[in-house]
Amino acid sequence: MLDAVLLWIKRNEKNSLADVKTWLAIPSVSTQPDHDQDTRAAAEWAVLNLRTIGLDTQLIETPRHPCVLATTPPALHPPGAPHVLLYGHYDVQPAEPLDQWVSPPFTPTVRDGKLFARGACDDKGQVHCHLAALLAWRQINGQLPCRLTVLLEGEEEIGSSNLMAVVQAHRDLLASARTLIISDVNQFAPGVPALVYGLRGLAGAELRLRGPNTDLHSGMYGGTVRNPANALATLIAGLHDKNGHITIPGFYDDVRPLTALELEQWAALPFSETDYARELGVPELWGEAGFSTLARKWARPTLDVNGLTSGYQGPGGKTVLPAVASAKITMRLVPDQNPQKILDLFAAHVQRLTPSGVTLEVERHGESPPALTPMDSPAMTAAAEALEIGFGKRPVFMREGGSIPVVSWFKDALGLDTVMVGFGLPDDHIHAPNEKLDLDCYCNGIRTAAALYERLAHHLA
Amino acid sequence: MLDAVLLWIKRNEKNSLADVKTWLAIPSVSTQPDHDQDTRAAAEWAVLNLRTIGLDTQLIETPRHPCVLATTPPALHPPGAPHVLLYGHYDVQPAEPLDQWVSPPFTPTVRDGKLFARGACDDKGQVHCHLAALLAWRQINGQLPCRLTVLLEGEEEIGSSNLMAVVQAHRDLLASARTLIISDVNQFAPGVPALVYGLRGLAGAELRLRGPNTDLHSGMYGGTVRNPANALATLIAGLHDKNGHITIPGFYDDVRPLTALELEQWAALPFSETDYARELGVPELWGEAGFSTLARKWARPTLDVNGLTSGYQGPGGKTVLPAVASAKITMRLVPDQNPQKILDLFAAHVQRLTPSGVTLEVERHGESPPALTPMDSPAMTAAAEALEIGFGKRPVFMREGGSIPVVSWFKDALGLDTVMVGFGLPDDHIHAPNEKLDLDCYCNGIRTAAALYERLAHHLA
Repeated sequence: MLDAVLLWIKRNEKNSLADVKTWLAIPSVSTQPDHDQDTRAAAEWAVLNLRTIGLDTQLIETPRHPCVLATTPPALHPPGAPHVLLYGHYDVQPAEPLDQWVSPPFTPTVRDGKLFARGACDDKGQVHCHLAALLAWRQINGQLPCRLTVLLEGEEEIGSSNLMAVVQAHRDLLASARTLIISDVNQFAPGVPALVYGLRGLAGAELRLRGPNTDLHSGMYGGTVRNPANALATLIAGLHDKNGHITIPGFYDDVRPLTALELEQWAALPFSETDYARELGVPELWGEAGFSTLARKWARPTLDVNGLTSGYQGPGGKTVLPAVASAKITMRLVPDQNPQKILDLFAAHVQRLTPSGVTLEVERHGESPPALTPMDSPAMTAAAEALEIGFGKRPVFMREGGSIPVVSWFKDALGLDTVMVGFGLPDDHIHAPNEKLDLDCYCNGIRTAAALYERLAHHLA
Repeated sequence: MLDAVLLWIKRNEKNSLADVKTWLAIPSVSTQPDHDQDTRAAAEWAVLNLRTIGLDTQLIETPRHPCVLATTPPALHPPGAPHVLLYGHYDVQPAEPLDQWVSPPFTPTVRDGKLFARGACDDKGQVHCHLAALLAWRQINGQLPCRLTVLLEGEEEIGSSNLMAVVQAHRDLLASARTLIISDVNQFAPGVPALVYGLRGLAGAELRLRGPNTDLHSGMYGGTVRNPANALATLIAGLHDKNGHITIPGFYDDVRPLTALELEQWAALPFSETDYARELGVPELWGEAGFSTLARKWARPTLDVNGLTSGYQGPGGKTVLPAVASAKITMRLVPDQNPQKILDLFAAHVQRLTPSGVTLEVERHGESPPALTPMDSPAMTAAAEALEIGFGKRPVFMREGGSIPVVSWFKDALGLDTVMVGFGLPDDHIHAPNEKLDLDCYCNGIRTAAALYERLAHHLA
């Protein structure tokens, strides 16, 4: 039966692609209020799509962007089939800076075998692999291999602040699932499919230093008052030492060391620092001293400035001493760091680092705990087999540097372990201009998803 | 005769104010190409105004914004009267950030006895004091007390790059002047008129640090490459030591020490650090250790960030590792620092400070030498008397922290010393939101200008 499903998928690739393009064309940028209507439209698109597959589907209102909740009616799965929960998100990151996109971010465009659009990889494109696979099962088999619940949210990129209320309101349904499936991660490399068993967490904040009550003439006043932009530079520079270690006292206290097995497996992965640096266009790699590049990206915490704003930013010069300077900062956290505790340590430290003559404001932006899941559960076994069917190769086990907060939340709220099976590649430019998904990855992703529900039905039976 | 002129000025204050408002309403922002037509319109406004006074006036084209050159025909001054040159500028700084203006920058508005508009003080408002005084002389006396040439430019705020070509082309006319008058400075304080005998110079540059070839996801890549925004903070922080001294090797080599007379005069000025800090809204003053606040603003060099730009600057957060981070920086220089030499030292030093893993670009923005002029020339004596007539108080001698590059250029090109007689106040917010000129200062400025030409005719005879 799976073979017939995979054949149907192959024959319907063009239709699938046309379908995902219509979803990607909707600019569901959750952080930008101008796009609130678009974000809702992307949710409604998903409702219609899931109903077409045959799921009982509803739009669930929240204070901001709605969730989509869909579940198989009894006729759509074999009696007694295991219940699986699929989570994804239909919102996307802002597309700015727009002038760096080769084709417009919300005009999905295929070039060189790649589908370019904001959300092509993160996460509408990967969610659509599942939708296309489910449609194939429905068309060929009249029903799905598992009992399935699908939960899509529109606030993943802005902290998922309303998701867990929806989860609690539908707790009985969701908690009856045996496992959680998320496709919001990458393969290790082209031709190296992977299962992700660890994620970094996140703690974000915006710092604002205020000096004079208005922008000042840098000639008339320069030298008499602290310049908030210079002061911000001093503050940020003080957050790392010269070895790239973060200076916040207590920051590393709860970091779990890597196991010998992990170090051994990672060393065996086909990873070239030279290629990686060339791909990113940097003269050399850099990071915390004493750790390999893969360890730094997967298992070491970081502190990165995401944005700087101060004074005059237009063409030419302006001889101004700015009244305000601000920085958006995120820290990536690793097991067993606690985002709330880290933000407290961070806030106290930046206060200590604030030079005299300016005042500091700290606005907390979002937090998400790191996660580690078992590598050897029946669901992971099913996923490994599905990836081998979908991509023709056994997957490796890896961690991811990014954060998927719901992994920890679902574990805490529902006791569910997550299987992270991703179809993206490291060069997909998610959160950046020219986000893309290779068409090969998209098609193999649909194949993997089709196999996954069949393998889960088997291993969880 | 001067009394009659001053009376006419008093009776025509409303007309003068209406006239200057029409000039201020023209958004002549020289650095912004969108405003090129407006900048030209502001020049044409001045041409018409000077022709109304009776001067032979022409618009002189340059590769960017035109100059206005006007000179008295023989019938407009007594035979053999000394020749005086007035320089000013009709261009203005950008008005951004617009949302901080109480009334729109190009809708001149009187509130609480103050005229608010971009350019109200710097420099259209101060130039207009002269225009109104000249009109008064013409109305009352049929001619002016001096032979007069007026040269206005439209590129003062962007480096005056075409001015000196115009000066050279009209060298014979301009070099025959006995002194140069500039009203582009402040009084020391309300009720304390001043003559300015020293100015700081300027050297500006934009730094750009490039890391990866595109913005990266801070989770997937954070920890593996140098973040240009963090690196920029480190670079900028390294430009000062903890005592506020600038770290560029050789930076202070040519700084001329203050004289005992200057230290004594400045100590006697009515200056309250507490009031100054309160007015600026800062918790405390700050600057280079070992120097008084007046010395730091008038006679010590500085290095200030004018603007910072990197990564995501919109609402909310975006977990991006930026590809580029940039800073606009200006240094204020003092006698006898050379801007070209300082920019060379700066460029070499920022290159040394650039962390590995990112590449630096330095774009030079503009430079202007510092200036010191003699305190006891006949022209300075005339100006001191004129200020006493205009404001009812003997002026003090002071320096200014700002830069007026033409002061040095006119000295070098034409051998002319400059008399800097200003009508503004330190709280006029030039280059910042809510720029203003007190109406008292404006009216006393017209009176001073009227007296100045009469006193110059006397002392230069």
